[in-house]
Amino acid sequence: MKPVLAEIITIGDEILYGQIVDTNSAWLGTELGKIGVRIKQISSIADDAEAITQALIEAQTRADLILITGGLGPTRDDITKKTLAEYFGVGLKLDQRSLEDVADLFQKRGRELTELNRQQAFLPENCTPVRNHLGTAPGMWFEHKGKIIVSMPGVPYEMMHMMTETVLPKIQASFEFPVIIHKVIQTIGIGESFLAEQLTEWEDALPANIKLAYLPHLAGVRLRLTGHGTNADELEDQLLKELTAVASLISKFIYAYGEVTLEETIGMLLNARSLTISTAESCTGGHVAHKLTSIPGSSMYYMGSIIAYDNDVKIKQLHVKPETIEQHGAVSEAVVREMAENVRKIMGTDVGIATSGIAGPDGGTEDKPVGTLCIAYSDATKTISKKLFFNKGRELNIEFTAVTLLNLVRQSLP
Amino acid sequence: MKPVLAEIITIGDEILYGQIVDTNSAWLGTELGKIGVRIKQISSIADDAEAITQALIEAQTRADLILITGGLGPTRDDITKKTLAEYFGVGLKLDQRSLEDVADLFQKRGRELTELNRQQAFLPENCTPVRNHLGTAPGMWFEHKGKIIVSMPGVPYEMMHMMTETVLPKIQASFEFPVIIHKVIQTIGIGESFLAEQLTEWEDALPANIKLAYLPHLAGVRLRLTGHGTNADELEDQLLKELTAVASLISKFIYAYGEVTLEETIGMLLNARSLTISTAESCTGGHVAHKLTSIPGSSMYYMGSIIAYDNDVKIKQLHVKPETIEQHGAVSEAVVREMAENVRKIMGTDVGIATSGIAGPDGGTEDKPVGTLCIAYSDATKTISKKLFFNKGRELNIEFTAVTLLNLVRQSLP
Repeated sequence: MKPVLAEIITIGDEILYGQIVDTNSAWLGTELGKIGVRIKQISSIADDAEAITQALIEAQTRADLILITGGLGPTRDDITKKTLAEYFGVGLKLDQRSLEDVADLFQKRGRELTELNRQQAFLPENCTPVRNHLGTAPGMWFEHKGKIIVSMPGVPYEMMHMMTETVLPKIQASFEFPVIIHKVIQTIGIGESFLAEQLTEWEDALPANIKLAYLPHLAGVRLRLTGHGTNADELEDQLLKELTAVASLISKFIYAYGEVTLEETIGMLLNARSLTISTAESCTGGHVAHKLTSIPGSSMYYMGSIIAYDNDVKIKQLHVKPETIEQHGAVSEAVVREMAENVRKIMGTDVGIATSGIAGPDGGTEDKPVGTLCIAYSDATKTISKKLFFNKGRELNIEFTAVTLLNLVRQSLP
Repeated sequence: MKPVLAEIITIGDEILYGQIVDTNSAWLGTELGKIGVRIKQISSIADDAEAITQALIEAQTRADLILITGGLGPTRDDITKKTLAEYFGVGLKLDQRSLEDVADLFQKRGRELTELNRQQAFLPENCTPVRNHLGTAPGMWFEHKGKIIVSMPGVPYEMMHMMTETVLPKIQASFEFPVIIHKVIQTIGIGESFLAEQLTEWEDALPANIKLAYLPHLAGVRLRLTGHGTNADELEDQLLKELTAVASLISKFIYAYGEVTLEETIGMLLNARSLTISTAESCTGGHVAHKLTSIPGSSMYYMGSIIAYDNDVKIKQLHVKPETIEQHGAVSEAVVREMAENVRKIMGTDVGIATSGIAGPDGGTEDKPVGTLCIAYSDATKTISKKLFFNKGRELNIEFTAVTLLNLVRQSLP
């Protein structure tokens, strides 16, 4: 069976100018991959009739399915709809239900329907409208020369809702799919090339229908096994066999299987042991707390935090001894140890964790340069602290501190 | 003068599978735009020799400059270098300085050079190596049939460093550039279509060499004026004239000009008035603090935060009256008002701000459904609170609360 090939076209000068990051394509790639659609290419082009037409022609030569996002806004710089109508050689006609949807939306918001928004309900004659419950621009489903072309708004949550509600099921009904299964292994604490060295022998022995990819990121290296086959159960067994093989080679670096984040893993570990946690943050300024609370249900184990950016707050709110700060400085293992131990007691949690560091770009000194980062973990029986050095800019320094601390929690929980 | 046209090719199955978001292209688009390069297309393709060659051929028909990122890792799934050598019909040879750079890097990290990494110093014979000071894969600069082709690693900070240090200056020296100037206006508190209605008349009167784009995002709508010309000073004057016209039409929605975030704006306002701020967060769980502390130098005005996820913490650490929580519930204007007022006193800051809400997906009730969000601002002379409703998923609900609160700060500072 030939695989279903798709291409994604994202339209908007703002993407080419780098004014926004195209997150839609990644989401579409994931969702389409799950149902067995293989993405052949992602193209980002300008709000320009010629570029749109050209991209459509090229994509039609390579793909069975073309997903277009963007360029459907109410304003005149959005010309996708007009261009599509011309491409298909049809006119625009009012779609009554789309008009009602837009009208409803404005009524809910207690605002009056503008003429610009009314015009959004005019759609190419040959399209099947796709309802948009979160925004004013309807989606459009076309079938043209044996290919399926879907145009959706660029606003991520509108596009995602449309895909899940309508487009993905319609795609599944429109094609016959081969079996493609992905298995993801999340590792942390080992670099890509060192991981590769440990896996070389096993990797060489992989069957031809299974592919391994290394996906390094700041929080570790994601390993992805992708299997292609005809029988789902057989492929599943085959992949699980390889998964077990990998696990035996690098077990201590694996923190999860599948698309699980480190903070989700921490959440599951805490829930499983019914432990609670609190945080005391200086240099990460709330980023650790934000990561932990980004997980639904985190209120089960996350109690709260004291962000002590200012030394006064460290002393008054976190009861860090002034002499500890004098002797060792605010960025020191001694101070983060006190922060972790104290926040644990203050918040009455089983675990307390803390950060203090020089995130930069300023604030570095001779003996404590920018990128000097201290983290600590404390529970009823032990306190563990680490001094790290990492300097790849403020944002990455903060992220790295948070991630390394969460990994310390993973390794240290009772 | 013909504009310099560029195309970006990002290589990696992980991008097509949606395992990672391509942030490199946005950054490249911004940086190239600044020096007057116009991005014609961004294409993301597989780690596949045929796809890479095909993309190169297509891009060469459209662009003068082709920037390739990704596919240069030490592992065998990265085949870009080999494919480029074949495309140019040359072999690989060891580049001594690249080898020394990799060796240095490993020595700094106190690790032994692996064979896989040694191989990374072998480069196509026709390339000018581009040094990589942050990673193991050197970049490659090619000149081929009158076009410039640059291959760089996909790791964002490695690629960015390479661009800034070497590639951008080399590009500027290689072409003659037209004048392209972008002006960005940051608005908040008004939707795209309402903004468009207010600007229609002015927009219609815009000269042909100036283009307006609406860039809506969760924190507001970014307006971008792009001018094309031959004389920088004249174009600058022309754009400033239009900028003034816009400002007069929508002044109260504008919070900044240029690529300035709302949190940077708050930072500037606080510094200018030498005011300090502290935060008390429930539903946003540190996200407001993280936004404020993401700005370099924020320690000048940001003192700290108490994240009171648990009601006990609200009472014990933030001194919220138990009866207020009993009477009004934790998610109420009454409670956030106390949180904002108390954190201001506890932290001894001029301003205190607070959030409490039901971010979801669980925890909603009949009279307080998921998406019920309360925010408060407090300074020496006033306390302002607002009850919002916004429900587009946990992550967006948290982001929306943070952004709306920061806008309240902007509007309320003494």
